[in-house]
Order: sequence, then C-alpha cells, then structure tokens
Amino acid sequence: MSQKQSLNVVVIGASGTIGKLLVQSLQEKGHQVIQVSRSSGDYQADIRDKQSLEALFEKIGSVDAVANAAGEVVAGPFTSLTDDQYALSFRSKLMGQINIVRTALPYLADSGSFTLVSGVLTDEPIAGGTIGTAVNGAVEGFVKAAAHELPRGVRINCISPTVLTESVAFHPYFPGFIPVDGWKVARAYERSILGIINGRILHV
Amino acid sequence: MSQKQSLNVVVIGASGTIGKLLVQSLQEKGHQVIQVSRSSGDYQADIRDKQSLEALFEKIGSVDAVANAAGEVVAGPFTSLTDDQYALSFRSKLMGQINIVRTALPYLADSGSFTLVSGVLTDEPIAGGTIGTAVNGAVEGFVKAAAHELPRGVRINCISPTVLTESVAFHPYFPGFIPVDGWKVARAYERSILGIINGRILHV
Repeated sequence: MSQKQSLNVVVIGASGTIGKLLVQSLQEKGHQVIQVSRSSGDYQADIRDKQSLEALFEKIGSVDAVANAAGEVVAGPFTSLTDDQYALSFRSKLMGQINIVRTALPYLADSGSFTLVSGVLTDEPIAGGTIGTAVNGAVEGFVKAAAHELPRGVRINCISPTVLTESVAFHPYFPGFIPVDGWKVARAYERSILGIINGRILHV
Repeated sequence: MSQKQSLNVVVIGASGTIGKLLVQSLQEKGHQVIQVSRSSGDYQADIRDKQSLEALFEKIGSVDAVANAAGEVVAGPFTSLTDDQYALSFRSKLMGQINIVRTALPYLADSGSFTLVSGVLTDEPIAGGTIGTAVNGAVEGFVKAAAHELPRGVRINCISPTVLTESVAFHPYFPGFIPVDGWKVARAYERSILGIINGRILHV
C-alpha cells in the first residue's frame, strides 16, 4: 500500500481515546478515514454482533485498511467471575475482533491491512484481570497465526498498549505501571497501517 | 502437597494418549487416580458442558490435584472456518478448561494443583491452525493470570506439548517439527502435579 498517497482506512472504536487520536493523525496525513462507533461516527456497528459487522462492510465497500480500537473485557476477582462475564468478554474483544477480520476480508484491497488490539495484560497480569489476560492471549495468537494465511498480501498486526495516560480511572489497577500517552499508541497503529510489517505484536 | 505420600489426582481425558500414560505413571508412583473420560473411565464428563463438570465434582468430592488432557480445536484453512467451528473450539479447549478450574476449585485441597494443556501452536503457527493458536494463547493467558489469584495456595500450570510421536496421523501437518514421546509429556504433568511450580507454561 505504500505506493498510494491516500488510503481509505476504517477505524472501529473511533470515538474512544485511542480511536480519536488515530482518526485525527491519519486525517492530518491526508488519509480518508471512515469512523465507526456503536452510537456515533460515519457508521454504527457493534463488534459483538457479526450481522452488524456484515451490514457495516456491505455499506462501506472497498477499503485499504481496517483498524480496531474497540473491545470489552470484564474485570473482577477470579472467584467471583460469572459465566456471563466470560461470555460477554469472549464475544466482544475476542470473537468481535476475529469477526472483523473474517467479515471485512473480502472488502479489503490487495496488500491491505488489519490492525487489532490486545494490551499489556497478556504478559503482565493484574488483580482481577484473568479474563483480560486470557482474551489478549487469544487475540495475539489469532494475529500471529492468521498473518500466515491471509490471502492477496493482506497483513495483520496487533497493538498491545499498557494503561493510557488519559485513562486516569484505571491507573489504580496498574500499580507501578508507567502509563503511555495515547498519541504513541496511535503511532503504533500507523506503523501497522502505513508500514509493511505482518504478524507483529507491537507493545506500546 | 509434597508432604503427602499419595495424592488423589483427577485425570480428565484419561483415555487419550497422554491421559493413559499419565494415569499409569501416577499409579506406579502410588497415587490414587480418578479417571474421567467422555465415555469410559471411573466417571464420565464432557468439558464442553459446565453442568456435566459440576455433576462430576459433586460425585468425586475432595481431591488433591486435577489434570486435564482433553480439549478439542477445529483445524482448517482460515478463509473456510465457520462460526460453529470457532464456537465449538472455544467451548471445548478454552472455556472447557477454564470451567474445570472454576468448578473444581471448591473441591481442591489447600496447595492442590490444576494442570491444563495448550500446545506448540501457541508460538509456532501451522497451516490451518488459526483457531488452535488463538485458543492456546487464551489458555496460557488464563493460567498465567489465574496463578496469582487462586486462593489457599492452589497452583495452576499449563503443559504445552509439540506433536506426539504416537499421533502419526498428525505428523504431516507439522513439517519439520520433531515429535515428542508421550511419556515425556506425562512427566511434565508430574512436574506440575507433584512439584511446587505455579503459573508456568511447560514446553515439551
């Protein structure tokens, strides 16, 4: 894709902290950004609902890149986690992201890219983060494997940010962790979207 | 548990290649083994069905260790994988193993242990193995995180075997991989069950 001056990039989770920064930065660089959120943006979709993703990409059509910054996992003490909390988390950040790739692939240009999101919990557990660590491990595994099977030179990478400077309410749950500014996470997305890497987990 | 001479160990998947070898080795060392399979053994249970696990441990009662060697993932080319194949795999090897831990925890002795299973695909993707790599990543993440939250000194580890020497039918899907003899995998389970380690991924 590096030959193209301006890419068509779908950003899912465009209204979140990372999404907003990524949208702004891509637009400043002259790219066309299609903003997707659950209740705002150019299009609405819920990654937990595969039909909603199918409807989304039918409407959008061909694109050069799909970047996701959405996905939910439930936090809580291990012995109090419920079936529903596991199911919701798996349906959202895990299967939701897998379904983005499965659904959008036919609409993605040759050598286009997917960028998913995991997080620091993959390798650094915190209290109440069991589901988060499990889901992140699955997302990173999916990316590492799918990278070798995607057709037409399509690439896929995963951004793994630590807790964000902007997410002040989460800081107490990450004792000793040095937060990262959201703009640096947006840059990592750009390394995936505008670069040539494939199958990489970018830790930020 | 190292003080006890003889442990009560539940082996789930006791009729499989690894399960059989583990059962035999533990019995030879003087431990009491409760064999669980879907259709044979001392008790029958299906890890895909949480109620079946609840009924199992109600019947078995107190134990010193639970080792799982069961769990299914579907293999197939990325672009042909179906919703059902993802769902089945997540329900079996991923949520099935998590539910073993959640269900058996109240019956497990202080300082008892859980031993789950992932596999070489976590870090070494093969053609058609996307779901396997994703599920293994989740299982290993779960183990790494839960290890810090389990109460009463309960431990948890994960065995990650490469393709087994005995699983000849699978060898063509693992080109260049050097198979491991099943008895070595059984030994890794014993390092977890009879040792002191916690939160470890044992690659065999």
